[in-house]
Amino acid sequence: MTGIIDFRLRPPVGGFLTTIMFREKERTMARTRQLSLEPPPSVLELSTEKLLGEMDDAGVEVGVITGRNTGSGFGTVTNEEVVAIAARYPGRFVACGAVNPVDTAAALREVDRIAGEWRMPAISMEPGFAPQSMRANDRRLYPIYARCADRELMTGPDVSYCLPVDVDQVAHDFPGLKLVIAHACWPWVQPMVGVAFRRTNVYLSPDIYAINLPGRDDFALAARSYLQDRFLFASGYPFAPVGGAVQAYRAMGFSGEIADKIFWHNAAALLRLSDP
Amino acid sequence: MTGIIDFRLRPPVGGFLTTIMFREKERTMARTRQLSLEPPPSVLELSTEKLLGEMDDAGVEVGVITGRNTGSGFGTVTNEEVVAIAARYPGRFVACGAVNPVDTAAALREVDRIAGEWRMPAISMEPGFAPQSMRANDRRLYPIYARCADRELMTGPDVSYCLPVDVDQVAHDFPGLKLVIAHACWPWVQPMVGVAFRRTNVYLSPDIYAINLPGRDDFALAARSYLQDRFLFASGYPFAPVGGAVQAYRAMGFSGEIADKIFWHNAAALLRLSDP
Amino acid sequence: MTGIIDFRLRPPVGGFLTTIMFREKERTMARTRQLSLEPPPSVLELSTEKLLGEMDDAGVEVGVITGRNTGSGFGTVTNEEVVAIAARYPGRFVACGAVNPVDTAAALREVDRIAGEWRMPAISMEPGFAPQSMRANDRRLYPIYARCADRELMTGPDVSYCLPVDVDQVAHDFPGLKLVIAHACWPWVQPMVGVAFRRTNVYLSPDIYAINLPGRDDFALAARSYLQDRFLFASGYPFAPVGGAVQAYRAMGFSGEIADKIFWHNAAALLRLSDP
Repeated sequence: MTGIIDFRLRPPVGGFLTTIMFREKERTMARTRQLSLEPPPSVLELSTEKLLGEMDDAGVEVGVITGRNTGSGFGTVTNEEVVAIAARYPGRFVACGAVNPVDTAAALREVDRIAGEWRMPAISMEPGFAPQSMRANDRRLYPIYARCADRELMTGPDVSYCLPVDVDQVAHDFPGLKLVIAHACWPWVQPMVGVAFRRTNVYLSPDIYAINLPGRDDFALAARSYLQDRFLFASGYPFAPVGGAVQAYRAMGFSGEIADKIFWHNAAALLRLSDP
Repeated sequence: MTGIIDFRLRPPVGGFLTTIMFREKERTMARTRQLSLEPPPSVLELSTEKLLGEMDDAGVEVGVITGRNTGSGFGTVTNEEVVAIAARYPGRFVACGAVNPVDTAAALREVDRIAGEWRMPAISMEPGFAPQSMRANDRRLYPIYARCADRELMTGPDVSYCLPVDVDQVAHDFPGLKLVIAHACWPWVQPMVGVAFRRTNVYLSPDIYAINLPGRDDFALAARSYLQDRFLFASGYPFAPVGGAVQAYRAMGFSGEIADKIFWHNAAALLRLSDP
Repeated sequence: MTGIIDFRLRPPVGGFLTTIMFREKERTMARTRQLSLEPPPSVLELSTEKLLGEMDDAGVEVGVITGRNTGSGFGTVTNEEVVAIAARYPGRFVACGAVNPVDTAAALREVDRIAGEWRMPAISMEPGFAPQSMRANDRRLYPIYARCADRELMTGPDVSYCLPVDVDQVAHDFPGLKLVIAHACWPWVQPMVGVAFRRTNVYLSPDIYAINLPGRDDFALAARSYLQDRFLFASGYPFAPVGGAVQAYRAMGFSGEIADKIFWHNAAALLRLSDP
């Protein structure tokens, strides 16, 4: 068995501490309990050292951390900061950039820095969290998608304000762009796995939304068959503990080779990591 | 084990006999058979005495009955009538009011009578059954929701013409209002349980739509975990027999404590009933 | 056990060879593998003789073939051609007509030929494949639905561009018209089986979309209960091999009598075939 890459987690350090998930820790822990899991010590104590220990215990070698730049009240994590955090803990985190989709010109310049200066593999966009929420197929995002396709970046819209049909459209319009859908448009599970059946440039990273929640069996069936090369493990930490998330994903019934893809190879290929 | 509260049933008496469900009894019984259940004697003979016996046999102590005031051809049951029916069978029925959402001013006056004069715990609205169907987030309903929130009433829109996203919006806009969603927006099961994950003032009462129908496992998974305090048993009688409904809900695999919540405590808390 | 009718398959002969599914054979076979099935020899060799052998091996006596007339690049199979193919292989294929929904007047004339001259039991429409995609409830389709209802034809819209709510509306507006929904609006599985619960003139023929794909259990639960008289087996060949499709449908757990309905009687009644 290979190691594990956690495709979405946020360590309690630097700008991450300003985001709502750590600022309103009780709300986050209530969410964890909705998943039938207990909040881990690293969240209770806001300790990145404890998080690293929990990652070790769960077999998670690498976590993907992304900036957050929404222009709204969800908190900000700059790209400089995620680069610095990744440098501080060598080999434990892969940093990905974020752009603010509201300011197209600035976003395009930032995409160039992310791909050129930092050589990051992906950018994150959360158009649903913009001051005026945008859908994933909003025309203002199209220049950004186009630039990402040019620069061979992945992109991953957050689903707070998007429907699988919007993703379908973007995936159709940018066939060379790999789209990683954080949250996997939950609770639109059946339409989302349906879109991913048609669009082979769509990757799903449901994070906490495949943990003990309705739709889990639909995700699992897809991930065991046609989606096995495009399904990514992510804990969504701090909303779920890393160890509990690993266990919940294992309980979806992935066999040896498929488990290796979902916990490591699919993410490693996207992130251009070599095998452990 | 505690007793059982049936959160939605309609005895074959008074104004209820004018509603389509008893007027077109054959249609109702065809629906029952679609659930793989047999129509009970109380429906065949339109006998409330027989219904009370069937409730006893099924362990159902209390049934929630609501008025119906749609302004369209579905039949009318006045608030005075449901109060009278509840009085005629002491301890067996809890009466809740109904308002006609088409006439806002009259509806607001009626909300005040329901909360003040009758001290009922909830009102029912069926905007989908209005002569011109309204969605649950129709702006004409907002004054009524606001008054219910003021008066600490629950409200429960029927889903005939509503989508979970509409409920999401109302639940967000009235965080102090408890919304009981009859039918639980079936067949939009995954989006509905998803909205209820986010909005903790949303209660689901799927009634017949959790009985041997697709989506049942999604309901069951939610009800066994994060929704265990906000999931309500209801038979939807006369569309399902009370006993068959109890059995079908039991078959969803609720453990002792969770079963007690779903069959009694959740409803009792909403209705301000004391424990048996 | 009775034989099997395959409600949707396309033999590799005549105009069918011009459709995208045989023209781009690799794409079709990739889809087959997404279903966890292997492409059969008849597809590899484009051999109708081999297909007939595969039908024999799978117990499939009769396959339903329909024309294709979309006015777009998906290829064309004329009604004359499907009649000729059915005549060439006596007893093995039932021919159904197709109309191009873009030209209403021509479509109405063609409906009359389909019902009158050829005495076919059904027409196929694929409004989602029109040069400008139409939804199933597009008003331009209404005269065609009306004529089909007059002529006691079934009709089956393809779901490429339709939602279950559109089917709901058409089924409501033409209660005397039997609608067979190819693909069953996958991936909108829960809403689709919900619409079919309400509308007893809706038949589902999910073809490949019930084969090892998410939503399969929702289809199976409906097909084992309220939908048992309106659920149709179809392989969707060449996208799935006939034998693999039969096995996958059998794995949905249909008991003897229900299996007979799904594999034979429901289709035979629609097609006015006598029992084997």
